[in-house]
Amino acid sequence: MAGRALVQWEENRRNAPESLTVDIYTGGPAPDGLDGVAFYQVPYAPSTQGVDERLDIIGRMPSLEVLQLTSAGFEHVLELLPDHVTLCNGRGLHDASTAEHALGLILAAQRDLPRWALDQRGHRWSPAPLRSLADRRVVIVGHGSIGRAIERRLLPFETEVVRVASRARPEEDVHGVDELPALLPHADIVVLVTPLNEHTRGLFGAAELALLPDDALVVNVGRGPVLDTGALLAEKGRVRASLDVTDPEPLSAEHPLWDAPGVFVTPHVAGGSTAFYPRARAFMDSQLARWASGEPLENVVRPGRG
Amino acid sequence: MAGRALVQWEENRRNAPESLTVDIYTGGPAPDGLDGVAFYQVPYAPSTQGVDERLDIIGRMPSLEVLQLTSAGFEHVLELLPDHVTLCNGRGLHDASTAEHALGLILAAQRDLPRWALDQRGHRWSPAPLRSLADRRVVIVGHGSIGRAIERRLLPFETEVVRVASRARPEEDVHGVDELPALLPHADIVVLVTPLNEHTRGLFGAAELALLPDDALVVNVGRGPVLDTGALLAEKGRVRASLDVTDPEPLSAEHPLWDAPGVFVTPHVAGGSTAFYPRARAFMDSQLARWASGEPLENVVRPGRG
Ligand SMILES: NC(=O)c1ccc[n+]([C@@H]2O[C@H](COP(=O)([O-])OP(=O)(O)OC[C@H]3O[C@@H](n4cnc5c(N)ncnc54)[C@H](OP(=O)(O)O)[C@@H]3O)[C@@H](O)[C@H]2O)c1
Ligand SMILES: NC(=O)c1ccc[n+]([C@@H]2O[C@H](COP(=O)([O-])OP(=O)(O)OC[C@H]3O[C@@H](n4cnc5c(N)ncnc54)[C@H](OP(=O)(O)O)[C@@H]3O)[C@@H](O)[C@H]2O)c1
Repeated sequence: MAGRALVQWEENRRNAPESLTVDIYTGGPAPDGLDGVAFYQVPYAPSTQGVDERLDIIGRMPSLEVLQLTSAGFEHVLELLPDHVTLCNGRGLHDASTAEHALGLILAAQRDLPRWALDQRGHRWSPAPLRSLADRRVVIVGHGSIGRAIERRLLPFETEVVRVASRARPEEDVHGVDELPALLPHADIVVLVTPLNEHTRGLFGAAELALLPDDALVVNVGRGPVLDTGALLAEKGRVRASLDVTDPEPLSAEHPLWDAPGVFVTPHVAGGSTAFYPRARAFMDSQLARWASGEPLENVVRPGRG
Repeated sequence: MAGRALVQWEENRRNAPESLTVDIYTGGPAPDGLDGVAFYQVPYAPSTQGVDERLDIIGRMPSLEVLQLTSAGFEHVLELLPDHVTLCNGRGLHDASTAEHALGLILAAQRDLPRWALDQRGHRWSPAPLRSLADRRVVIVGHGSIGRAIERRLLPFETEVVRVASRARPEEDVHGVDELPALLPHADIVVLVTPLNEHTRGLFGAAELALLPDDALVVNVGRGPVLDTGALLAEKGRVRASLDVTDPEPLSAEHPLWDAPGVFVTPHVAGGSTAFYPRARAFMDSQLARWASGEPLENVVRPGRG
């Protein structure tokens, strides 16, 4: 490994194998010596706004061999990247954070937490019987890295979990997405946690919502357009929803979702918590060590060609 | 078993052993034939208000052998009960409901759910980085039936749980309450879930709060007076709190807790959810069967004397 590595955290520089030259770049104006950079970890930004600079400088790295992202999504960098560069994503780094937010959204809906927050603001003590999470059948659409983390957290709540992915995997008790019409009439809660692609856009629309029993809950922590906003609004509260991602995003002040009955919205914050940092630092340590020793990298989403 | 049983749910009457005479009483005006009642299940009311009638009629049951409550607390009936009557409580029936509400309160605080509810009401999309539940050390004060149910639900969130009860049980890794001063400086979250008694009243006051690190969270799902309200208010948001039970209860519209920084309140609703009913019905079936066959009853909190 002749080239330099550019990473975000001082701790990774300290822990790096001695054979590596490691420099720090946390964002902002381009650092010196970009032409020698062979491994570039794009600095993490808690929000997706204003990442341009950090991506723009890729064009000034002729020696680049590995581009390492901290996000799970990577569609946005593909067009910036020469064919020979290996692309690695941050799969797994957001699992704990996103999964616990999903549980927060589920419990918020079952235990009426938004209502108690508004009652508190109005100084009202008005107890009422609640729904439980216990005894519910939860269909998780997207049994990937985050979906599995959600399942692990759900099971001790005395729930039943039904797994759905793009194709059936009977040996793992995973249903194919084509089985949804048979599963939805028996679902109390549906969690959407798929990537956005041509198959998942609008995956959950009027037909799927119509199959759900009254008072069912749809949770979306994947990507907004996976759930059809218009179809949800047309349910007028018959089906409830807790959404960390919406379509469109952000919601304008005039958007009808804000006041839709039975809908709770958080502004795309599931992945962005303190849980990310220790997991990301540990991952970067191991990734740099693999790169230095020539071992296969983890989380390769597009191998470099040639 | 010569006497009649008076129970709340038709299902229990249907499932009862044939040797028993079982009648239904769901509350309200006293039914006929109270003098023959030997087993009385006090009908469950989702709120603790207006239970008088259901308890008043105990004085008109000269043949009573067993009083069965659905609540965990039983202090309120001891004085109404002749010495020879066996008292059974509802320990365990509220575990799932109360434990999941505790998790809801923890996640509400860590993931800022009340803030998103208020932002939604104001049509504001304002994302911000969040705290996580992952990686937190959670001290559960009260490692009883509900405390253990909370622990089971917490562990998959990648937390560390520290168990505290009235006395140390080293073989179960349970600390005694006298060890709190050594444990609190290292706690991120403290969950209070003890009964109210002479030892637990004011158990968590100014001294305990002062030992907690900045931004720690105290959750109370036990009884309000276990946490000193004045001492919490004096922290002015340095320590956060999520409270299902408060002192006093209910909170008047003027009470300062409503607007205290970092405090989230739900109005004593943790135990009252749909999770209660299937667990309570199954328990009553088994309890009636035990009583009919002369087997030892479950959940005896005060054996009848003589
Ligand atoms: N809200 C947030 O802040 C936040 C944070 C992080 C991530 N996310 C979103 O969460 C998504 C999932 O992340 P991940 O790490 O769990 O991804 P992952 O490990 O790649 O898993 C994706 C899962 O979705 C399934 N899937 C794909 N297309 C599908 C379809 N048409 N129907 C049903 N299931 C389908 C996949 O099925 P197979 O198993 O059959 O391949 C897989 O099980 C990310 O892509 C991102 O958009 C959101
Ligand atoms: N918010 C609600 O809606 C709701 C619903 C149901 C119940 N509750 C409350 O929750 C309480 C606990 O219920 P449970 O069924 O878990 O009771 P439990 O099984 O009797 O357990 C009580 C636990 O508290 C511990 N404890 C007692 N005194 C203590 C002290 N001075 N210091 C530290 N720990 C002490 C006990 O310690 P040992 O193990 O050493 O005995 C035991 O571990 C109930 O009494 C009720 O007040 C609230």
